[in-house]
Amino acid sequence: MSPASHGDGDSPGPASASSTTRTGTTYRTGIGASTPDTIFLLGQDLAHDLLGQVGFGELAFWLMAKRRPTPAQRTMFEAVLVALADHGFTPTAIAARLTYTSAPEALQGAVAAGLLGGGSRFLGVTEDAARFLATSLARSSERPGDDAGWDELAAEVVTATRAAGDLVPGLGHPVHKVEDPRTPVLFELARRHGTFGDHLALFAAIGRVHPRILGRTLPLNGAGVCGAVLADLDLPVSVMRGCALLARCAGLLGHLAEEAADPVGMDIYLGVDRNIDYRPPE
Amino acid sequence: MSPASHGDGDSPGPASASSTTRTGTTYRTGIGASTPDTIFLLGQDLAHDLLGQVGFGELAFWLMAKRRPTPAQRTMFEAVLVALADHGFTPTAIAARLTYTSAPEALQGAVAAGLLGGGSRFLGVTEDAARFLATSLARSSERPGDDAGWDELAAEVVTATRAAGDLVPGLGHPVHKVEDPRTPVLFELARRHGTFGDHLALFAAIGRVHPRILGRTLPLNGAGVCGAVLADLDLPVSVMRGCALLARCAGLLGHLAEEAADPVGMDIYLGVDRNIDYRPPE
Amino acid sequence: MSPASHGDGDSPGPASASSTTRTGTTYRTGIGASTPDTIFLLGQDLAHDLLGQVGFGELAFWLMAKRRPTPAQRTMFEAVLVALADHGFTPTAIAARLTYTSAPEALQGAVAAGLLGGGSRFLGVTEDAARFLATSLARSSERPGDDAGWDELAAEVVTATRAAGDLVPGLGHPVHKVEDPRTPVLFELARRHGTFGDHLALFAAIGRVHPRILGRTLPLNGAGVCGAVLADLDLPVSVMRGCALLARCAGLLGHLAEEAADPVGMDIYLGVDRNIDYRPPE
Amino acid sequence: MSPASHGDGDSPGPASASSTTRTGTTYRTGIGASTPDTIFLLGQDLAHDLLGQVGFGELAFWLMAKRRPTPAQRTMFEAVLVALADHGFTPTAIAARLTYTSAPEALQGAVAAGLLGGGSRFLGVTEDAARFLATSLARSSERPGDDAGWDELAAEVVTATRAAGDLVPGLGHPVHKVEDPRTPVLFELARRHGTFGDHLALFAAIGRVHPRILGRTLPLNGAGVCGAVLADLDLPVSVMRGCALLARCAGLLGHLAEEAADPVGMDIYLGVDRNIDYRPPE
Repeated sequence: MSPASHGDGDSPGPASASSTTRTGTTYRTGIGASTPDTIFLLGQDLAHDLLGQVGFGELAFWLMAKRRPTPAQRTMFEAVLVALADHGFTPTAIAARLTYTSAPEALQGAVAAGLLGGGSRFLGVTEDAARFLATSLARSSERPGDDAGWDELAAEVVTATRAAGDLVPGLGHPVHKVEDPRTPVLFELARRHGTFGDHLALFAAIGRVHPRILGRTLPLNGAGVCGAVLADLDLPVSVMRGCALLARCAGLLGHLAEEAADPVGMDIYLGVDRNIDYRPPE
Repeated sequence: MSPASHGDGDSPGPASASSTTRTGTTYRTGIGASTPDTIFLLGQDLAHDLLGQVGFGELAFWLMAKRRPTPAQRTMFEAVLVALADHGFTPTAIAARLTYTSAPEALQGAVAAGLLGGGSRFLGVTEDAARFLATSLARSSERPGDDAGWDELAAEVVTATRAAGDLVPGLGHPVHKVEDPRTPVLFELARRHGTFGDHLALFAAIGRVHPRILGRTLPLNGAGVCGAVLADLDLPVSVMRGCALLARCAGLLGHLAEEAADPVGMDIYLGVDRNIDYRPPE
Repeated sequence: MSPASHGDGDSPGPASASSTTRTGTTYRTGIGASTPDTIFLLGQDLAHDLLGQVGFGELAFWLMAKRRPTPAQRTMFEAVLVALADHGFTPTAIAARLTYTSAPEALQGAVAAGLLGGGSRFLGVTEDAARFLATSLARSSERPGDDAGWDELAAEVVTATRAAGDLVPGLGHPVHKVEDPRTPVLFELARRHGTFGDHLALFAAIGRVHPRILGRTLPLNGAGVCGAVLADLDLPVSVMRGCALLARCAGLLGHLAEEAADPVGMDIYLGVDRNIDYRPPE
Repeated sequence: MSPASHGDGDSPGPASASSTTRTGTTYRTGIGASTPDTIFLLGQDLAHDLLGQVGFGELAFWLMAKRRPTPAQRTMFEAVLVALADHGFTPTAIAARLTYTSAPEALQGAVAAGLLGGGSRFLGVTEDAARFLATSLARSSERPGDDAGWDELAAEVVTATRAAGDLVPGLGHPVHKVEDPRTPVLFELARRHGTFGDHLALFAAIGRVHPRILGRTLPLNGAGVCGAVLADLDLPVSVMRGCALLARCAGLLGHLAEEAADPVGMDIYLGVDRNIDYRPPE
């Protein structure tokens, strides 16, 4: 277990944590603190106010946003985590399994190796789409009142992005070339739970208008819609990638539990190692 | 987003994933697979059977156990994740914040650095307690029928452990010297939700009998009771540490979101760096 | 040890590695390959051509550049690695020590945690300076023939950078405000060993001209000059950060060997944990 | 660059680092410290005593052992690092490449992912062999005076290990079934450089006597002999794994530089992903 911060034995609460200060320097936090009798988390009494009363996804949102989600926000947040949890044998899942093959005694290393692939190419779209939508909305003075208005804004945004030689994040998928099955479901869930906001509205409009601007029809991918959903939940862009990492952590643990029970890591390694094309430098 | 496994475009389902095999070698998995139209997770249709219908904690249990939890099992599993999510400025939280201070552009690195502390000393007790209890139960032919019987078994186990010069995992806490506030709550929740099994029964008995054997009274710590709860949920011991890592991942994201908004990492670094006692080798 | 690629038992050399191909897919590499009788590294016979005949720093350069360094290049490369190996209790060293405190059984995790801080803020300057100098040189059609010419180019570059609101990488140091002691020594070594090239020439000129443009005199820092030295050794910018990571790996191992013998990690943790200023969200 | 420890501006040297103490707590270290004018490393003046005068491998040994190696020790240490630097497409190299494929912007993450495989199965033999030999030597009161004596001790050790149902670390190799090409070269180098000590003597004897005890002839593998060489250099067993990690760090950087120039990571990923055998749980 983790030895936690401890105030004076007589202390009534976490306020005393700083009363034990031995130096001029203190370290601000609003997350966790302990006394001999109580563990505080986000200012709540962990044992009596949280255990059995708050869900794990709910707590994760609370920790990242410093704000307890409404039931609707919680449902949408967990839907996004479920959508991003796993995508089969991705590079991150393979890296985690191979690390487990090499060092099975340190599960934390295999999970860490898998999460380290959570960068620009494979988990970044969620964050990129959220930032792109937020920035685009920030540029327009007032919000469109109807689909026609959203289409107009979307057309401006897509045109400007194309003119700059950039790609619109969240458009296109290597496998789901016509439609990403997650996309319509997440849109529908957001409408049903009343969390459908400006980011999703703009993203939907981008889906409608991009074909006539880009000259081809691309699907709105699941990672992009997840970014729009999270942005509509008012989560800071700085932690968007964190949501994807938390989701992926669960997926990686599934892969590692499976690897422990029915290993394929050694076969993956040999499948590469026995098929090298050796081209040494001169 | 992560490009996912794709079968032949005409394929009806993931069975086709292996039909596209180009080599004799295939890689077994029961977790994720995709076709152009469908994403499968644990054999379910992610979009239509899981999104908005399964909670994140529920999915994490399902991934690790390959078995969907009952509502009671889900509640207890999430209670454990909440109990283990954070303990304030632990070494793992500080390591994550300092890594973020050095490389803020790579959030995944800061999370990974934090999880890498999830080893024997700070997250291992959950796994150690679960293994200790399971091993002890495996030794006894039949289960005690009453508290007296459990006390007898617990006395044997504690005596044998002490004789071997080992410690009983889950006993004692550096801060909560009298009682870990999480412990009675988790026992009570397990009873109320009907998941109170042999592991918790033995752990409770150890709490009752150890004083007369060890000569001093120690609290049953929260990490230990979490291990007993998870073992009673029939999760494989191989993933116990994984539960602690998933819980901690959420806590670390809370610390990193806070660090992004109100940084203390540089102060922590300077607090060490400016107070070194330099003792070079001869 | 690591089981290595193996060709057919009768095979004379690594060429056979691909002759054992079981699939259409092969994986190109020029680094390592093995047969039952021989281990090849960079096309050399590891046992008979490299062991005891090539230094470790020399091999590291060879691996990254796919080119064996000259004795002068090797000396300068090792000088840079020595210059970047350690800077005392940096955030990366503290993160590594705290990870070791939490999980001493997994040394690789502590080293990895330390390297994960090797991002933009603490190890990035070497790479940034090399890229900045290379880009600036690429812009000018021909090379200046004398210091006056270099000063002119440097003045253009610094002026343009300032106009763009950017900082010149490699200028300034929080501790060595007048002069970084490594800088003159590395310049002198490069001159003596004949590896002083255009990148160092431009960097030196930036040191001469920036005061009259920026209005204040800043030192050329050691990380910046290391980037200039490595660029003059014609190492690809893509691996500049890798040089800093390799150097830091040695420094971290020094910290961890010291932590194992004379631990301070727990004191660092308590120094933070006992001085928190708890400010829970409303 | 990394801001380093700084004493009072007037301070003559690192002694002042602790004179700036603001709290009762100080942190012992003998590695690095800085003042505005000087950077100290291992008590030396980095700029004037080390740059260009100490090799990188030499410094790495000095950092881990807190003792400068003799030229012979340095040669043998670097020979071991060269022997362990790379083994082609090992699980660790593949994990590093796949992580780079996913997050090319964070090279440190790819290196860290590769090092995280440096655990019991793939890099542990060096450490295990060193510990095994040291423990065996510690048991015998005095050292054998001749090969016959060493053979006797080796026979005892191998017999006892087999009786305990354990394996002798350093015996056997999946590819080099007759002889590991590194082994005879490292023995010969140690003899030539005068670092051949008791650990190598016992290891050599194990190579001679094990066939008649185990009933089959196994090669002394390179990782095992590296452990014996390092133990004869009197490096602490606690950092043996660190030597393997440092060596591997160079090898991984070679793989990543190659991956950046001529990528195969995506092919490796697709080679797995397109060949899954999907077996969802009931």
